[in-house]
Amino acid sequence: MLDLVTLGEAMIRLSPPNFARLEQATHLDLQVGGSEYNVAVGASRLGLRAGWVSRLPENPLGRMVRNKAREHGVNTDALVWTRNGRVGLYFVEFGAAPRASAVVYDRAHSACSEFREDEVDWDRVLEGVRAFYVSGIMPALGDGAARTTRRALEAARKAGCLVAYDLNYRKRLWTPDDARRCQEPLMEFVDLLLTTEEDAHVVFGIKPEAGDDPNFNQVSGQSYESVALRLQQRFSIPTIAITLRENPLVWKNSWSAMLLHQGTFHRAPRIEVEVVDRVGAGDSFVAALLSSYLTDGDWARALPFGVAFSALKHTVPGDVNWSTREEAEQLLKGGSLRVSR
Amino acid sequence: MLDLVTLGEAMIRLSPPNFARLEQATHLDLQVGGSEYNVAVGASRLGLRAGWVSRLPENPLGRMVRNKAREHGVNTDALVWTRNGRVGLYFVEFGAAPRASAVVYDRAHSACSEFREDEVDWDRVLEGVRAFYVSGIMPALGDGAARTTRRALEAARKAGCLVAYDLNYRKRLWTPDDARRCQEPLMEFVDLLLTTEEDAHVVFGIKPEAGDDPNFNQVSGQSYESVALRLQQRFSIPTIAITLRENPLVWKNSWSAMLLHQGTFHRAPRIEVEVVDRVGAGDSFVAALLSSYLTDGDWARALPFGVAFSALKHTVPGDVNWSTREEAEQLLKGGSLRVSR
Amino acid sequence: MLDLVTLGEAMIRLSPPNFARLEQATHLDLQVGGSEYNVAVGASRLGLRAGWVSRLPENPLGRMVRNKAREHGVNTDALVWTRNGRVGLYFVEFGAAPRASAVVYDRAHSACSEFREDEVDWDRVLEGVRAFYVSGIMPALGDGAARTTRRALEAARKAGCLVAYDLNYRKRLWTPDDARRCQEPLMEFVDLLLTTEEDAHVVFGIKPEAGDDPNFNQVSGQSYESVALRLQQRFSIPTIAITLRENPLVWKNSWSAMLLHQGTFHRAPRIEVEVVDRVGAGDSFVAALLSSYLTDGDWARALPFGVAFSALKHTVPGDVNWSTREEAEQLLKGGSLRVSR
Amino acid sequence: MLDLVTLGEAMIRLSPPNFARLEQATHLDLQVGGSEYNVAVGASRLGLRAGWVSRLPENPLGRMVRNKAREHGVNTDALVWTRNGRVGLYFVEFGAAPRASAVVYDRAHSACSEFREDEVDWDRVLEGVRAFYVSGIMPALGDGAARTTRRALEAARKAGCLVAYDLNYRKRLWTPDDARRCQEPLMEFVDLLLTTEEDAHVVFGIKPEAGDDPNFNQVSGQSYESVALRLQQRFSIPTIAITLRENPLVWKNSWSAMLLHQGTFHRAPRIEVEVVDRVGAGDSFVAALLSSYLTDGDWARALPFGVAFSALKHTVPGDVNWSTREEAEQLLKGGSLRVSR
Amino acid sequence: MLDLVTLGEAMIRLSPPNFARLEQATHLDLQVGGSEYNVAVGASRLGLRAGWVSRLPENPLGRMVRNKAREHGVNTDALVWTRNGRVGLYFVEFGAAPRASAVVYDRAHSACSEFREDEVDWDRVLEGVRAFYVSGIMPALGDGAARTTRRALEAARKAGCLVAYDLNYRKRLWTPDDARRCQEPLMEFVDLLLTTEEDAHVVFGIKPEAGDDPNFNQVSGQSYESVALRLQQRFSIPTIAITLRENPLVWKNSWSAMLLHQGTFHRAPRIEVEVVDRVGAGDSFVAALLSSYLTDGDWARALPFGVAFSALKHTVPGDVNWSTREEAEQLLKGGSLRVSR
Amino acid sequence: MLDLVTLGEAMIRLSPPNFARLEQATHLDLQVGGSEYNVAVGASRLGLRAGWVSRLPENPLGRMVRNKAREHGVNTDALVWTRNGRVGLYFVEFGAAPRASAVVYDRAHSACSEFREDEVDWDRVLEGVRAFYVSGIMPALGDGAARTTRRALEAARKAGCLVAYDLNYRKRLWTPDDARRCQEPLMEFVDLLLTTEEDAHVVFGIKPEAGDDPNFNQVSGQSYESVALRLQQRFSIPTIAITLRENPLVWKNSWSAMLLHQGTFHRAPRIEVEVVDRVGAGDSFVAALLSSYLTDGDWARALPFGVAFSALKHTVPGDVNWSTREEAEQLLKGGSLRVSR
Repeated sequence: MLDLVTLGEAMIRLSPPNFARLEQATHLDLQVGGSEYNVAVGASRLGLRAGWVSRLPENPLGRMVRNKAREHGVNTDALVWTRNGRVGLYFVEFGAAPRASAVVYDRAHSACSEFREDEVDWDRVLEGVRAFYVSGIMPALGDGAARTTRRALEAARKAGCLVAYDLNYRKRLWTPDDARRCQEPLMEFVDLLLTTEEDAHVVFGIKPEAGDDPNFNQVSGQSYESVALRLQQRFSIPTIAITLRENPLVWKNSWSAMLLHQGTFHRAPRIEVEVVDRVGAGDSFVAALLSSYLTDGDWARALPFGVAFSALKHTVPGDVNWSTREEAEQLLKGGSLRVSR
Repeated sequence: MLDLVTLGEAMIRLSPPNFARLEQATHLDLQVGGSEYNVAVGASRLGLRAGWVSRLPENPLGRMVRNKAREHGVNTDALVWTRNGRVGLYFVEFGAAPRASAVVYDRAHSACSEFREDEVDWDRVLEGVRAFYVSGIMPALGDGAARTTRRALEAARKAGCLVAYDLNYRKRLWTPDDARRCQEPLMEFVDLLLTTEEDAHVVFGIKPEAGDDPNFNQVSGQSYESVALRLQQRFSIPTIAITLRENPLVWKNSWSAMLLHQGTFHRAPRIEVEVVDRVGAGDSFVAALLSSYLTDGDWARALPFGVAFSALKHTVPGDVNWSTREEAEQLLKGGSLRVSR
Repeated sequence: MLDLVTLGEAMIRLSPPNFARLEQATHLDLQVGGSEYNVAVGASRLGLRAGWVSRLPENPLGRMVRNKAREHGVNTDALVWTRNGRVGLYFVEFGAAPRASAVVYDRAHSACSEFREDEVDWDRVLEGVRAFYVSGIMPALGDGAARTTRRALEAARKAGCLVAYDLNYRKRLWTPDDARRCQEPLMEFVDLLLTTEEDAHVVFGIKPEAGDDPNFNQVSGQSYESVALRLQQRFSIPTIAITLRENPLVWKNSWSAMLLHQGTFHRAPRIEVEVVDRVGAGDSFVAALLSSYLTDGDWARALPFGVAFSALKHTVPGDVNWSTREEAEQLLKGGSLRVSR
Repeated sequence: MLDLVTLGEAMIRLSPPNFARLEQATHLDLQVGGSEYNVAVGASRLGLRAGWVSRLPENPLGRMVRNKAREHGVNTDALVWTRNGRVGLYFVEFGAAPRASAVVYDRAHSACSEFREDEVDWDRVLEGVRAFYVSGIMPALGDGAARTTRRALEAARKAGCLVAYDLNYRKRLWTPDDARRCQEPLMEFVDLLLTTEEDAHVVFGIKPEAGDDPNFNQVSGQSYESVALRLQQRFSIPTIAITLRENPLVWKNSWSAMLLHQGTFHRAPRIEVEVVDRVGAGDSFVAALLSSYLTDGDWARALPFGVAFSALKHTVPGDVNWSTREEAEQLLKGGSLRVSR
Repeated sequence: MLDLVTLGEAMIRLSPPNFARLEQATHLDLQVGGSEYNVAVGASRLGLRAGWVSRLPENPLGRMVRNKAREHGVNTDALVWTRNGRVGLYFVEFGAAPRASAVVYDRAHSACSEFREDEVDWDRVLEGVRAFYVSGIMPALGDGAARTTRRALEAARKAGCLVAYDLNYRKRLWTPDDARRCQEPLMEFVDLLLTTEEDAHVVFGIKPEAGDDPNFNQVSGQSYESVALRLQQRFSIPTIAITLRENPLVWKNSWSAMLLHQGTFHRAPRIEVEVVDRVGAGDSFVAALLSSYLTDGDWARALPFGVAFSALKHTVPGDVNWSTREEAEQLLKGGSLRVSR
Repeated sequence: MLDLVTLGEAMIRLSPPNFARLEQATHLDLQVGGSEYNVAVGASRLGLRAGWVSRLPENPLGRMVRNKAREHGVNTDALVWTRNGRVGLYFVEFGAAPRASAVVYDRAHSACSEFREDEVDWDRVLEGVRAFYVSGIMPALGDGAARTTRRALEAARKAGCLVAYDLNYRKRLWTPDDARRCQEPLMEFVDLLLTTEEDAHVVFGIKPEAGDDPNFNQVSGQSYESVALRLQQRFSIPTIAITLRENPLVWKNSWSAMLLHQGTFHRAPRIEVEVVDRVGAGDSFVAALLSSYLTDGDWARALPFGVAFSALKHTVPGDVNWSTREEAEQLLKGGSLRVSR
């Protein structure tokens, strides 16, 4: 019996070490990641019984992706295996100001992007499950993936799951128009919507307030609150969470989040982060928010815990967060930056 | 004005270091390779003015593939660039007896596999060129690639090029039947056919003689000669070259080749090779055979030079042969294995 | 419900890359291994539902050991966690003739060596389990570990498990006398005894026949058979399996095994192996032997499968065997050493 | 027909990874670099047809230096090859405040330092070429190199090239007095002089204004303008460009430049850079300034483009700038520091 | 004849590269370090004849620890060698804000922790020696180590050494109570006490003044002075030195120190440090303070030299400081952060 | 008081990992080595008090060379330090059959090659020393180095040292004629001459007997004996030792040596070696031969010990032999190639 099930693609991630440009690489570091995969891993590490559903080819790379989910205790029994197809790849170039980190995707034609909606018995998979998570990347992968997403959301609603959905707009996968058209009808199933100010703007046209930095390098709390309110009003979603990142530089960011639940705003303190690898920080936030909320049902406590755990993610190489619950709790209590010995 | 033009796909090659299995990899070494690319590089290193034609996406990986051809002096002016599409990838697992080295391809949907036959002005590209090379991998990539191959062969014949063709059968790309059906009509354009005993059998059904090892771990000279004769007779190809590999172990092979020109057999001595990386050895043989023949028109001298240069390839990491003409000539004279200092 | 449960210590293994001596190391490669851990991993990879019981400290290294078992699908629910204690370490120096590979242990005071016999509820853990495996390393770790071993063996017998036991003598852990005194009484629980000729001699004084190489660099089949017979007679163990290694060099060995079941000898062909990492080969043999026997109950088929799978182990870095059932079966059919593409 | 030709030495650069001191190094990363080589590479990447003239020994290191120029499309036909001599080396220690990065040269007796003035047929090499670049490092290498520099400058003037010259004072190569004595007579050939405030002071005694930081850690715009004016007046050079670096820390600098053309000052905005590798930043500035100016003849547009492209250089390992024109243009438009995906 | 002798444990230090968490490590960098070992190395590099006394097992790791002391010229003649026992280990995880760097010790049962008080002939070892150093880590290792510490201190006093003692409280080794109980009686032998504000508080209950940051992330000079005064008064120690670290971030700290000698306060300027590896910075301070004082007997000059040398330590990987006297002196004169070439 | 002093150059050695060609290298492994340096290190590791005399520049590379001698306990008090000059470098390409490993020297103009004969006070340095070693590389470095060599040999003779001399012909440093002319007069000082058959032929024209392999890939004992006899007769040298290497492959050699003392031949058994790094094997032989002979004065025992210790060298990366006396003794007793645990 699982607490949380997520659905989505995980890719092999390849990145040149030491800030090298991809074009000059002679060696690549290998990691595995993907939004919903990252959330399942994070939740499992924080103590939830988490499962991850995806579609993988039966080859060494497919097995590797599966293995690394299991490494963190994630249940992979519901994976769909294919004889053919490929594992999606993506390349990360780590940047330094004024060069932002960049992602080059090579994920077209992946096994997961060719999901067929009838390949998972969702009623069985979601039986007794308390929460379900999927992000806007999944329906962007293709028509079958979009239909699978909808089918899963329907089943999750039916199974009584808390349904969490992260907009996660990816411009390399679809246009804003397509993203809106596909996802607007999915919002009715959503109990917890996660987004950034930028994605809310691009996908749903909910503009940040005047005066905000058009590059989203600086953000203001008020602006975020208005975005959350409008999202809640438009889609009648009980809970909206927005992560807030300021990145005046690439190696140093400021990180926080806010949450709107039933008309009440919750805010978490900002945390200065020195950035080792910020990929997956948002997913860590989701994992910790859900883990905390599913444990004690209190969004006010879940929010700062989510921020603390995901702040730690910025310091860990790879897409998933190898930190522990204890470390996040220690950080919330006000941790020292002295060497811990 | 170029001496040699080759047409074909080059891929990014990723391999786990230190004999790790792909499934356990955390780091990958990156190389660039592909049969026709390797031949162009080898020929350029040996002194020919060589050009390479392919189709690449305008992104860091596409540029990297182009760069590495240029690094060896290969002319890349006739490359076709695309806005979309991907660079094909392949993964190499280096083995040890009793585990053979293995290749996992991820090349479907590559930019090169989607070649359209009208994208290259072959008459212009081949003007004044003395030799043209393509292998059986190119037409296996897809219909457009196959039509492009035929178009190039026609133009090469018309331009008066010596046309070299390596069967290079790849079972992950097509069936033996498809390979035969597509390539039989191409044989009329071929002046120099390169193959292994195994490929001749699989593609054209020309069986090795009784008594041969069905795994091709041991080979016999007589058997090869009969294969060559039958190929020559069936397709009226003036020159047939067959490489001979014995691999009782993975780290130690014995390497040679024979050549049939107008009814006369030429044989080269066997060379014991300690195998660092045998990928691309056959391509090194082609490069050196052509370089020598185009220099002095003597197949009898070209054959042992081809064997020596390609024997050296086995000792060099990557698909291309960083050895020099001088090193191959020194080896032919009978080189010492003492430390050279 | 599990098919196989194993009990034993897993250590962090640290080895200098590229044949460096430990004394000159500046970097160490990290792996996890231990006989019973390796067997559980191998069996899980081959399709058994396998569980591993051990005792680990709640710290990053303890979690890492647990994670890597899970990565291969091994059930770790019955692990005993401690607040204090350490994870045992060992260092491997990879050799080259005439320098053998060498192991430096730093495993004293490990959490597992301080096992207390009442920490595992064996009846619950072994309920419905079909086979149990432990090696002679476990009782050598300390008195508590020895008592735990005996307690587990009693429970396994009671639960109707097939009990497999590998002598695995480690001279750095105890003297031959202590090893004999402790293990003789355990033999009554054993259904399948695994050993080498050398260990049988050292622990139980069963001498190899005259003429054998006192260093065990060369071995003879006859000698092994007499050792097996005497073991069977002395302890009334239904099945005895002995692995046969010849190592005239460090990088090239010859590997095989024989099995005596109820008076009938089974022999497997020798396989020439180029040695990447031979640590854990014997454990791979056990894993594959058990996996095959538990699947179809035929020792005659299990033996060559065990040899093939463990021959592949020699080619894989680390203590565990990342090969697949298909690869071992392919090898039994007589695999080519050509590059597989 | 080339757009730009540069003359100068390229060295093999060796640097310990991860901020290690050279004295403690066990591994070294290898790059190729040198001021004029870097400029040719940068210009070629930005679309100019660029050639590089130098003198290299015919050995693996000499070939490597040549290859890496070709990798970026630089024409190397005019290289002078020698049978003996060495490739110069330099070692870079990457620092962290308060330890500056440091360079240890081992370049004495290099093939290039032994250039003889009659080894290049400059009239042929510069025929039709639009711009020529050399830096003050070249004449500092030795008497023959100095005479070769002068000969090249004369030929460039004669061929109607725009002549660009970077002072690039290297105190390990010569004294300020020698630098002045040698270079003052060369200024008559210069159309574009590039320098830093510091070098102008050391070589030509043009003092920064009172109040400036004697360590040049902070710089002021006014001071630079006065330096530029005095350089222009003294040597009647039409265009003077000065790069402005502030480095309160080693890992974070502020970077800009100003340009004085025919009495008009042009200024570019400051860009905050997180420093991966600042070696070659000045050369990137030259490459981009020339590329832009040769394209549209507008110094006012060339200056900020030069600053943007060279700001990006700080984020790329190695001496050359693997960035693209598009990236520099994007930065000028005001780029986001969010992950680009 | 030695100038300085130190007594203490050195460990093998293992750390995952590139900010990886220990739990995810696949490779570890290896260094050797330990407070008293670091001080001996630093002093030797700065020109003192330094010796180091410890207890090591006769195995590759023990020899490695000895070798690396010798590498820096440290005399190791008085080492005690054991047949058994282990070298202590520790693991360092390098952090990034908000995750502090962390140390995981695996040092229990080390050969040094089992020191017996009669194993060193201190009178012989300290004959003619000018200074002796030990830290609070040594007595924390165990009873024998504590007795050995006291014995050494007595002998040092008798031999007329300047006795330096760094509190160096390690909470993983003992409780504050035990630390106080053991060390209070040792203070009578101490001529120079080194500490941080935090350790003085924890061990001797000397509280920082009101208003100070309880996490010691920010520190104030006044507070430190009062701590030093109270230490001096309580234990009648002629000289007290306190290092002052501010660490608002992990990668950037501010570093200084103050010294109280016979009622006079000396202060050194703060130095901004970009942190590559701050482990051992305090030991570098001790080494440089002693080296300077033993050279010219002037605490006022020794203090800033100690701060400069130890500021440089932050930029060097490993526990010991590969910097030179010249570099520290250059920094005191106000060094540039430009690339030194 | 030292047992052994050696005189000669040590270089920084740079080698591409994993059999890469130098031309394709992106990373280099760094070692320190040189014949006389290697002998001092080996002897020190085997228990002699050994010192090494050379000439080094005062810079990080010079210090590194010094440090690594000290790391092994070698006394470096008599080193000559220079303000300028460079450390010699050499590059090693590790080969695989049919490509021999190769060395590219970059040692011209090194500080050691510019030795002046009056820079060492040999009478003081050699006072009480029992043996002195220098090789034919030292006089090949330059005229000053040759004069220094002679001066040292004279002093060694005068001091009553056993003088050992290894011909070590290096064709990149001088011609056979120059080598003969310079070294013939030195032979009068030599008590123990070490050489290979090949060097004796090249330098002194002492031909191997008819039938021998002109590439020295195979060797015969008889041939060696005649060479030794003729060397002894021609130069009246009491003891001649010749190492015997057969290298049918690069990765597997057969290694032995013979010794002629006062008309009696001593032979050692052949040892099959798998070659990790054979550079320095001859120096290891010298170190062990001298160590053994200086200990018990018995050439008959020294010879096999020398062969065993140097056979182990082939398995260790770098120029120096990190093996121990115990390991060599164990090998002489007939070691197993099983994993030692």
